[in-house]
Amino acid sequence: MLISHDGTTATEVQHQQDATADVEKLKKRQNALTRTIWTLIMIGGFIGLLLMGHVYMMILVMVCQTVAYREVTALFGLATTELSTQDKQSLKDKDPWSKTLNWYFFAVTNYFLYGESIIYYFKHVVFADPQLVPFITNHRMISFTLYVIGFMGFVMSLKKGFLKQQFGLFCWVHMTLLMIVVSSHFVVNNILEGLIWFWVPASLVICNDVFAYIWGITIGRTPLIQLSPKKTVEGFVGAFFSTLVFALFWGTLFMRFNYMICPVHDLGISAWNSTQCKPNPVFVWRELPLWHPFAIFMSTLLGRTITAIPYAPYHLHLLLMACFASLVAPFGGFFASGFKRAFKIKDFGHSIPGHGGMTDRMDCQFLMGVFTYVYYSSLIREHHVTVGTILQTIVSGLTVDEQIELVADLHRYLETQGIVVP
Amino acid sequence: MLISHDGTTATEVQHQQDATADVEKLKKRQNALTRTIWTLIMIGGFIGLLLMGHVYMMILVMVCQTVAYREVTALFGLATTELSTQDKQSLKDKDPWSKTLNWYFFAVTNYFLYGESIIYYFKHVVFADPQLVPFITNHRMISFTLYVIGFMGFVMSLKKGFLKQQFGLFCWVHMTLLMIVVSSHFVVNNILEGLIWFWVPASLVICNDVFAYIWGITIGRTPLIQLSPKKTVEGFVGAFFSTLVFALFWGTLFMRFNYMICPVHDLGISAWNSTQCKPNPVFVWRELPLWHPFAIFMSTLLGRTITAIPYAPYHLHLLLMACFASLVAPFGGFFASGFKRAFKIKDFGHSIPGHGGMTDRMDCQFLMGVFTYVYYSSLIREHHVTVGTILQTIVSGLTVDEQIELVADLHRYLETQGIVVP
Repeated sequence: MLISHDGTTATEVQHQQDATADVEKLKKRQNALTRTIWTLIMIGGFIGLLLMGHVYMMILVMVCQTVAYREVTALFGLATTELSTQDKQSLKDKDPWSKTLNWYFFAVTNYFLYGESIIYYFKHVVFADPQLVPFITNHRMISFTLYVIGFMGFVMSLKKGFLKQQFGLFCWVHMTLLMIVVSSHFVVNNILEGLIWFWVPASLVICNDVFAYIWGITIGRTPLIQLSPKKTVEGFVGAFFSTLVFALFWGTLFMRFNYMICPVHDLGISAWNSTQCKPNPVFVWRELPLWHPFAIFMSTLLGRTITAIPYAPYHLHLLLMACFASLVAPFGGFFASGFKRAFKIKDFGHSIPGHGGMTDRMDCQFLMGVFTYVYYSSLIREHHVTVGTILQTIVSGLTVDEQIELVADLHRYLETQGIVVP
Repeated sequence: MLISHDGTTATEVQHQQDATADVEKLKKRQNALTRTIWTLIMIGGFIGLLLMGHVYMMILVMVCQTVAYREVTALFGLATTELSTQDKQSLKDKDPWSKTLNWYFFAVTNYFLYGESIIYYFKHVVFADPQLVPFITNHRMISFTLYVIGFMGFVMSLKKGFLKQQFGLFCWVHMTLLMIVVSSHFVVNNILEGLIWFWVPASLVICNDVFAYIWGITIGRTPLIQLSPKKTVEGFVGAFFSTLVFALFWGTLFMRFNYMICPVHDLGISAWNSTQCKPNPVFVWRELPLWHPFAIFMSTLLGRTITAIPYAPYHLHLLLMACFASLVAPFGGFFASGFKRAFKIKDFGHSIPGHGGMTDRMDCQFLMGVFTYVYYSSLIREHHVTVGTILQTIVSGLTVDEQIELVADLHRYLETQGIVVP
């Protein structure tokens, strides 16, 4: 601020105030411009990476989580208000390991989680490479050992007089790992289950944000939550209905592409390759027969015979995901708002020009990603049993005598079913 | 203290000091007695529960983790040194939900983890009950929904002016859940994999503690770690070798009982039932042939022919577990010591008379339990493939055409192996 308490006259103060207001206005406009430009860059980059393939999407998630992790762990300094600046400096001097340990735990967690995903989704690839096999069969043992080494390092770095700080940082690091890195792991799994399970939920969250803003500035009046004074009930409710409609449109648009709905089997493909898979039944169109009187009414209204409306089970799932994106995911944002207010900061960082930190953009995405994963794996994923996998299990897991016994049992079973084996 | 700064004479002060010393001595002796009595009660109770069956062991773990969770979450008050007592009181008045939320998160975490264990180990039982099936197939979805409800409750309970406290408590609760409740889950899994995987590792930790104390008070001189002045290098090293010897003896003693080594299939059994299972190969005795000159030397020495020594692979695993129990698990104790020092407390609580809190007794057990689980599941567990399970998969997962294809494939495979199916 330029206004000082020295002997300036009232007119001079007025002039200065006007100038300040002009500067503020200019700054705001410039900020809005930067924000818009970077929004377009982000959307463009996002779509570009989406078309380039699963690997690029996974790299994007990895970059986002790394930036968010850096932002949140860097904030720990603010949590230690008890210490004077001098103390903090001496803590830094005496505890050079804290930063190393933060990133060590980050690396170990990622090693463990990415390993788990790769082993689960690329069994057929990784088990074919004899050099990788020991790493795969002992993956959890290796990860645990690495973690324990970090844990022992932390205990050995403990210094009298700084214990509270060090335990606080340890807790902070683990919490950040849980909320950012573990969530991102589920987002990566969603990508591997088919890009649509990542793309559509992420879009729904963004759509809900945008509509909450639009409804808020147009008809918003009633404040929604004490922690975020700009959020309104009208914005919340309006965004809910808008997101429901958007979800049906957006989902229907993308469910036609095999590239979007197929689980990944080959990381080399992009949108320009042709992808083939037997689509999950939720994407298969079927007909919903209408109640007879209603069908007659609709036929009269539209001037052509309508007896059923086409739908896919995915539409029901879209509506449920839209509900989550607009009713529950915003709580991730409220959580982040409360957190920022607790530490009296405006943004988590300055990673994206005009947008603040990465964490500010991602707050609701983490919750949405975990929800999508749990929802997908509980209600939608099919456990594929094929002749090939069973044959592999039989050959590798049973003795010859057991194999002969199985063949006999199978013959008997098929006979009781009235089936003659050729 | 009875000594006051008023006008007492030197003799009177001396008398008072003597009296105080006597009282202190009496107190110490009484404390040692209480401690010994409760140690015996604990050992007796532990063995009693062990003989009564797996369910009682699991209940014991559940009780221990609940007490430890209560102790650690209760300590959160000490972490908020910034607040005056008055502020703390007003926080309590304004935030009646914090305690409810703590226990809610505890309940949800346990629901999730125990559910996972029960589903994994008792598939055959729970899938037979049609009322349970929806809870099992949607277990993760239900757990996630319950967690999200708690998360939303937390966000809605946020109050301006207490944000830092509330986020601190949230972080603290999650950290405690991670370190105590999740660890206990692995201990429960160990029990279900066979009581020996719980009993022996837990004994090793206790044995190491006892020997570190014994070696420490007899020949201990060099201090080991700044945080725990009573720990000595001699105790640490002595306990290491003692634990190795103890492990071999203790493991050999218990590996002969089917009750100890069989994975649980029926929760109703106790030590008085006869348990039958095909033992895991690590418990099967075999012969290690000796190097010829060494065999001759040993035979001459002992006066009878020795060509090989009997062993089981479990002995190797025992040595590795003993190494972990004496070299790594103590770091769990150092961690707890540092934590107590950070908050200037002597014990985590007063749950066990003469011993302090439950957490004080359990600190190294958590780390040991997780290690045993990871070690067991990576290196020892056998994935049982039986004719029955494969038949079930074939019947439920393949179409009739695929079943016929499989039979043909199997015939072809067996023929190439030179085996004629009768």
